[in-house]
Amino acid sequence: MVNLEFIKHISMPSSTKIVLIVIDGLGGLPSPETGKTELETANTPNLDKLATNAICGLIDPVSTGITPGSSPAHLALFGYDPISFKVGRGVLEAIGIDFDLQPQDIAARGNFCTIDKDGLVTDRRAGRISTEECVRLCRLLDGLVIDKVRLLVCPVREHRFVVVFRGEGLIPDVNDSDPQQIGVAPKPITALHPEAARMADIAHQFAAKAGKILAEHHPANMVLLRGFSTHPHFPTMGEIYKLKPAVIAGYPMYRGLAKLVGMEVLEIGVSIEDEFATLKRNYANYDFFFLHIKGADSAGEDGDFDRKVRVIEQVDNTIPNLTDLEPDVIVVTGDHSTPAMLKSHSWHSVPILLYSKWCRSDRASEFSESACVFGGLGQFPATQVMPLAMANALKLTKFGA
Amino acid sequence: MVNLEFIKHISMPSSTKIVLIVIDGLGGLPSPETGKTELETANTPNLDKLATNAICGLIDPVSTGITPGSSPAHLALFGYDPISFKVGRGVLEAIGIDFDLQPQDIAARGNFCTIDKDGLVTDRRAGRISTEECVRLCRLLDGLVIDKVRLLVCPVREHRFVVVFRGEGLIPDVNDSDPQQIGVAPKPITALHPEAARMADIAHQFAAKAGKILAEHHPANMVLLRGFSTHPHFPTMGEIYKLKPAVIAGYPMYRGLAKLVGMEVLEIGVSIEDEFATLKRNYANYDFFFLHIKGADSAGEDGDFDRKVRVIEQVDNTIPNLTDLEPDVIVVTGDHSTPAMLKSHSWHSVPILLYSKWCRSDRASEFSESACVFGGLGQFPATQVMPLAMANALKLTKFGA
Repeated sequence: MVNLEFIKHISMPSSTKIVLIVIDGLGGLPSPETGKTELETANTPNLDKLATNAICGLIDPVSTGITPGSSPAHLALFGYDPISFKVGRGVLEAIGIDFDLQPQDIAARGNFCTIDKDGLVTDRRAGRISTEECVRLCRLLDGLVIDKVRLLVCPVREHRFVVVFRGEGLIPDVNDSDPQQIGVAPKPITALHPEAARMADIAHQFAAKAGKILAEHHPANMVLLRGFSTHPHFPTMGEIYKLKPAVIAGYPMYRGLAKLVGMEVLEIGVSIEDEFATLKRNYANYDFFFLHIKGADSAGEDGDFDRKVRVIEQVDNTIPNLTDLEPDVIVVTGDHSTPAMLKSHSWHSVPILLYSKWCRSDRASEFSESACVFGGLGQFPATQVMPLAMANALKLTKFGA
Repeated sequence: MVNLEFIKHISMPSSTKIVLIVIDGLGGLPSPETGKTELETANTPNLDKLATNAICGLIDPVSTGITPGSSPAHLALFGYDPISFKVGRGVLEAIGIDFDLQPQDIAARGNFCTIDKDGLVTDRRAGRISTEECVRLCRLLDGLVIDKVRLLVCPVREHRFVVVFRGEGLIPDVNDSDPQQIGVAPKPITALHPEAARMADIAHQFAAKAGKILAEHHPANMVLLRGFSTHPHFPTMGEIYKLKPAVIAGYPMYRGLAKLVGMEVLEIGVSIEDEFATLKRNYANYDFFFLHIKGADSAGEDGDFDRKVRVIEQVDNTIPNLTDLEPDVIVVTGDHSTPAMLKSHSWHSVPILLYSKWCRSDRASEFSESACVFGGLGQFPATQVMPLAMANALKLTKFGA
């Protein structure tokens, strides 16, 4: 099986440019009324035109039948086997807010939550408090020192925050306090083996202190912690692919993930149009762009079929801004499926189109799940998208004599 | 690569039900007269209707170009990589007749065969003697003791029997005596390494004694032994998938294989209709059913194109009995191809249909090799069938954040 080490040996720098557009949760399921998926329902003349000149197919994010979270799904798209390359949730959130993680730091993802008078969780997200409120609450907890360990508490968005434990002798092997359900108490944080006892003790003390400090701040009167982890050190896309890559993404986690594989983070505004404007503004300075569009996944998770359709149509509207730049390789796909019918991520394979001068276009003349079934790429693992894009950008040399 | 350990971590119990119908040797080759395979020739309105609402594709039992035996082909369908999970033929036959194998037992598959006056094999199956005759001959051999090793000889069906060697210090690493061809003598049983010398010696003595005892019982005047093996201990489908699985199969070997991965064996009658009646009768008590139909493979092996067509049509007739039960997931496929044109198992990929509420139906509107080429599942390894069925039954949680 081809792995990163193999690709590293045959990749070479060149002036060609690759743009990878990831419409988060792109794949869908048909509406029972129309028999058409979200993508098939959307009016997408520009994507259809691109598909006509592209080679199409379907990708499996992790493996047949496996429903991935966003992190493994994106790592796969970047060419990193997500079964081997693991990232803790705490680290993802921390790097996503540009937190400068030190090698010994332990990061955890936090939720401000609501508990009742018996200490049982009644809302894991404290009614999705505003980001402003989150900032205010984080200030109350930030800077605590417990047994010589300094706590750095930083807001992310709405009810989400990151806590970083900075001190000596900490290892992240402790369980989550987040019970992932309501009606029960937060779980006690315990060590998964004896060496992690100090970490468990400090995290436990932090949760207890946070409970006292937040007591009067209903609905956000407690914290839930999960994904205790340290910074993993992955080979970068620069090392593997000899690329100078950049990320254009509105949500912290995706920027964080991209940074983890060595992408530079570009500043953007709030809309899809802003993202494409950022691409245009920075186009000369990089040779690989990962442009992430979150709205389709959020709409899918909310079960809002029509909103997902509209997000896809919005992307379609901006495609001419992309094609005007004339990238050597354009890839449009999703990280996974999020069918509005299921209101969650799913295992279904994801449509992909790859356009380049050398793509060997197939007969697919629209960008849809059904058309991609007949695409020239067939059905293949998402980890193969990067080698394919690199090949189409003429950035891979011949293997063997 | 996704393996059983991975699936075990993300599987969860639920009330949904999966029915896996395996039409043994389903895949075929076109008749030169009509250009249609057995499945394409068969009149299958019910399977075609199911295919119309299902997602279709083609599976490779072991790997592209590999012709599998029944055992690896079925293990793959149950999700067990047949290259890693090996089962000796002797063990398969033994557990298939409900023989209570002990940990130290060595089992071998036996054939009653015919040898001529020069000791050369003239019929490896002794004219397929009746099962009654087999029972009678086994009684002549059962209970022999050779060098403190007790020989347990049990009839299977027709010319087939099992011999179990029960004693101290036996290991199964000896070669077969079955030469797999006629016109030559049975092969001497020799040890593959020195530690197996005792086993080889005892097996050799057994074959010699059997020859003497059977001398007057033409056509069954000798035995051929193969597949010396001990009971392997595989993780069960209950452990891996959190399923309560049951097998409905008329042939011992398939029941044995299913038992090996933890399925409960259900009692059935002799016909395909009986198998489906068994399914209905036990439907409430299990959440996974493996229903095996042998006739298509036997017809293929006999080169009987028309009989294979009729077996497939018989299955089709009973499909309404299945769909009336409204299983959450229905999979219809084969373990491998057995084209009547080849009169043997083959390497050809095997049609599969998977029906569920969430399957993302494709445009395939009939169940056939040619239609499945254009199915939404593409072509994929048989080991991925179970993860896919589990996903469609909503029995797998998300992988990663």
